[in-house]
Amino acid sequence: MKKEVTYIQLWLKSNGYDACIIPQADPHQSEYIENHYRLISHFSGFTGSAGTLVVTTSKALLFTDSRYHIQASLQLKGSGIELMKCGLPDVPSPEKWLSTEMNGSKVAANARLFSIKRWAELSEAVNMCDDAGFETLWRNRPALCDSTVYIHDVIFSGESVESKLTRVRAIIKEQEAGYAIASNLDDIAWLLNIRGGDVECNPVVRCFVIVTLSECTIFIDNSKITASAAEYFTKHGIGVRSYDDIDEALKGCEGTALYDENALNQHLFLLIKERRKINLPLYIARLRAVKNSVEIEGYHRAMINDGVVWVRFYKWFNESLESDSRITEIDVMDKLRELKAEQELFVDESFGTIAGYAAHGAIGHYAATDESNAIIERKGLLVIDTGTHYLCGTTDTTRTLVCGTLTDEEKRDYTLVLKGHIALGTAVFPKGVKGSQLDILARQFLWNESMNYGHGTGHGVGHLLNVHEGYAWLRPSENNIGYEPGLTMTDEPGIYREGKHGVRIENTVLVVPYSKSEFGEFLTFEHLTLAPYAIGAIDLNLLTADEKRFLNNYNNNLKNKLKPYLSDSEYEFLETIAYEI
Amino acid sequence: MKKEVTYIQLWLKSNGYDACIIPQADPHQSEYIENHYRLISHFSGFTGSAGTLVVTTSKALLFTDSRYHIQASLQLKGSGIELMKCGLPDVPSPEKWLSTEMNGSKVAANARLFSIKRWAELSEAVNMCDDAGFETLWRNRPALCDSTVYIHDVIFSGESVESKLTRVRAIIKEQEAGYAIASNLDDIAWLLNIRGGDVECNPVVRCFVIVTLSECTIFIDNSKITASAAEYFTKHGIGVRSYDDIDEALKGCEGTALYDENALNQHLFLLIKERRKINLPLYIARLRAVKNSVEIEGYHRAMINDGVVWVRFYKWFNESLESDSRITEIDVMDKLRELKAEQELFVDESFGTIAGYAAHGAIGHYAATDESNAIIERKGLLVIDTGTHYLCGTTDTTRTLVCGTLTDEEKRDYTLVLKGHIALGTAVFPKGVKGSQLDILARQFLWNESMNYGHGTGHGVGHLLNVHEGYAWLRPSENNIGYEPGLTMTDEPGIYREGKHGVRIENTVLVVPYSKSEFGEFLTFEHLTLAPYAIGAIDLNLLTADEKRFLNNYNNNLKNKLKPYLSDSEYEFLETIAYEI
Repeated sequence: MKKEVTYIQLWLKSNGYDACIIPQADPHQSEYIENHYRLISHFSGFTGSAGTLVVTTSKALLFTDSRYHIQASLQLKGSGIELMKCGLPDVPSPEKWLSTEMNGSKVAANARLFSIKRWAELSEAVNMCDDAGFETLWRNRPALCDSTVYIHDVIFSGESVESKLTRVRAIIKEQEAGYAIASNLDDIAWLLNIRGGDVECNPVVRCFVIVTLSECTIFIDNSKITASAAEYFTKHGIGVRSYDDIDEALKGCEGTALYDENALNQHLFLLIKERRKINLPLYIARLRAVKNSVEIEGYHRAMINDGVVWVRFYKWFNESLESDSRITEIDVMDKLRELKAEQELFVDESFGTIAGYAAHGAIGHYAATDESNAIIERKGLLVIDTGTHYLCGTTDTTRTLVCGTLTDEEKRDYTLVLKGHIALGTAVFPKGVKGSQLDILARQFLWNESMNYGHGTGHGVGHLLNVHEGYAWLRPSENNIGYEPGLTMTDEPGIYREGKHGVRIENTVLVVPYSKSEFGEFLTFEHLTLAPYAIGAIDLNLLTADEKRFLNNYNNNLKNKLKPYLSDSEYEFLETIAYEI
Repeated sequence: MKKEVTYIQLWLKSNGYDACIIPQADPHQSEYIENHYRLISHFSGFTGSAGTLVVTTSKALLFTDSRYHIQASLQLKGSGIELMKCGLPDVPSPEKWLSTEMNGSKVAANARLFSIKRWAELSEAVNMCDDAGFETLWRNRPALCDSTVYIHDVIFSGESVESKLTRVRAIIKEQEAGYAIASNLDDIAWLLNIRGGDVECNPVVRCFVIVTLSECTIFIDNSKITASAAEYFTKHGIGVRSYDDIDEALKGCEGTALYDENALNQHLFLLIKERRKINLPLYIARLRAVKNSVEIEGYHRAMINDGVVWVRFYKWFNESLESDSRITEIDVMDKLRELKAEQELFVDESFGTIAGYAAHGAIGHYAATDESNAIIERKGLLVIDTGTHYLCGTTDTTRTLVCGTLTDEEKRDYTLVLKGHIALGTAVFPKGVKGSQLDILARQFLWNESMNYGHGTGHGVGHLLNVHEGYAWLRPSENNIGYEPGLTMTDEPGIYREGKHGVRIENTVLVVPYSKSEFGEFLTFEHLTLAPYAIGAIDLNLLTADEKRFLNNYNNNLKNKLKPYLSDSEYEFLETIAYEI
């Protein structure tokens, strides 16, 4: 057994526990977490972004989903840890396994790393004890990130912290609550117009906030507060206390607590146990997801920046191929980052660029390494999924590029994905529609050919915030979020042929009003992304007149918008790839 | 205040209650109920199929949904009963109203008429007491229906009661339960291959069933058992006890109870309170909904019967109009019933025919009365929604007929509805897809024109059972039922322009295998209904080549299948309306 696991087992025995449970999570239930919280990586060696490690006195099991079955089986080899491939028939969830194999036993876990709901589910199977003592076995544990707070200027955010607090206080009053707890890092960054860099590519800062009808307090490490941040908080009447003070502060709060079960952890939840509590899922997330006019204007500017990057990138890419320069996937990633960094208001990439050539394009979250790095030949397809944080907004775009000659199958696959992307992207729908209702529009042409893709079709996009916004998902499973004007999200169908090629096409889109009639209020999408599609990959015989019209209009708009920012030679190049069909 | 309500208020006071709640329900949670259970109609005068009556010591309120706002406001006029128009902003649900206005008060209700879930919700607001004493205030209450049991022959059902019991017992074993309670009337009729006539157009019989690993007992009024039914039950080892014996029997049952929370009432649920219980929603309904090959063959035969009816009806209808005979909506209903009754294996209509001419076609569940009965003129559209129970299967079809000249708006509306009907009806989709995912296919062309309809797009269809099967719904709201081969359902989009006209087009369809590929198993629909569409109502400019192909194939199939059953003149007529486009 891996020695890190053996240490845990000794700890379990000497502390009288039958097992411990380690999730892939932080105290804010973030989708992406700081290295400090990657306990699973340390104890098991598995580095995927999702999983649960269960260590008993005699064995250890890692539960993870289908995205990570292959990676986990490689990384766990020789560790003595059993891999539980969730999603396969007869493979139980951690909850089910504990219920069957460990029913009623005494289990240690760090309650700060569990949502209220999951802790309750686990508590039905075993006796959950809030004890994180085993975490001290991690020697040389990475420190918590020390990024500092910076202010997100109202010229970009479009709404003052006072106005946002007034809106949250209106909810507190409406719910007849005494105070609200904000624990989701995106929510807090939005609410206080602050940003940081505690999680890679996610411009958030580790903190909690409590809002009462008269006060607002941020709980944050003192080292994160610069002089200008301190001044900002003082100016806006925001009290500052230490991150760890949240426990004491919560215990002292008067009145009914308003919280979001998606973000509050079990440890904090118990501190408010004795009072009436109101769970209001996503109550700040909705305010955050509906963008104001300044944010929308910012997206338009960000898309022009990114559009210029795309044109310059395409030009470099085509010229490199034509001149037989040897370029690789990593060259593509580097070139994109270099071009983005030249743009005004650039902050960071919004996630690590995926550049998957040929068969690599069929791998879900492919990240080229020195070992895997493929040379791009003059044939086949290259999937590039990339995004940028600018001060004025966040982008997320995928284009599948033609590297040279294509097979009929590649062209057909590209065209079917494009048809789905257009069908969803041009949909008209009543206000309040759910993402699960729209999802099929992007899949229908693939389904007709007995094809499908295993990921959702879209996700919300933050405004200089997490690229997965965590509000309005667009996927087959229902999430009860009704669409309304101002939401920004992606439209990204794909197709993946293992060992051959992948296709994905993604725009960031904005929900906008379409019409009002006797039948109600209707909405549609505005395409924010300005990046040429690969016209050369299209089987034009498969397109309808309406689809061709969409593409021509899209290209005309893109050329008009980008022209002022391109050199003559760049614009001439753009005209050769964004031509009328 | 209406005197029936006054009597209840006196009863409340003399029995120490603050209020009583009367639902529109029977002890089996049926969608349609016997007149005996129409307590709301008696006490309030409101005759709609859905509502909740709340009577307090000082007031009375009727809560009903948007389908019945107009009808209820007319029927409640002068009664002193306040109408609560649920669905409008600021109108609370009964639960919410009780929670706000009557919190903690003592409320009488008949627990046999409440699902477990609803009783629990109400119990959060008020102190629910199982007391149906106020029901005795209904003098001259209609008796319970005395329809007798008849056997649904295995040559039609395709599976013996022994085989069905074996399948239910396999579920009992798998769930490690001791016995199963069947309380849904469709479930029982299917399980025991019996039918009755206790609810208008619903061939079910009022009873309960308990299945153990070794026994099966039906609880049913003795008067319903004919000699042949008694013999059938004996032959198949089914014990027979009185309907009212279910209480005592449940109290005596050993082992864990398996039940379906959608069908079991609160009163019976409490009788099994002391034991571990397993709620397995729709566990018999799924077996019932997936039709076997004999049932499917039966549907085909039923559709030929109905197809012949439709052709003869169309011929009569067209000739009547051409000869200037004065025909009305009621004539249409009568003619259809007459033609159906001539067909072999005819049992009954599967619901009261809707025949709505012109503006009547825009009324949701229009039923022509002597007062409303419209004369059909040589212009406009006529919506006919009709279905039949044959021994070999149940049908449900809607056609919108051309009565003469049409406006451009009528043709456009017809065509947009037809396009949605075809898009859904020709869809290919992965096994396990939900109805909420497919629903948009039927609405997309309407949404594009800022139009919509307020009902679901489809419902399961029983096999000589309720035309609303209560399993696989096809509507925007999610119900977690995955589609699989063998399900029968409807495809029925529509459009309704108040005061002008309505359009609805409906086929009964069967879920069938389509393909298997590396991306999974795919399914599609087979159209079972054989009734000509109104080609004359189509704006052919709006149809794609694929849509025209679907219509031509549909008509060719229909003509081939019906030809052997039609006279020469009938077939000649069919050719004039089902022509190639």
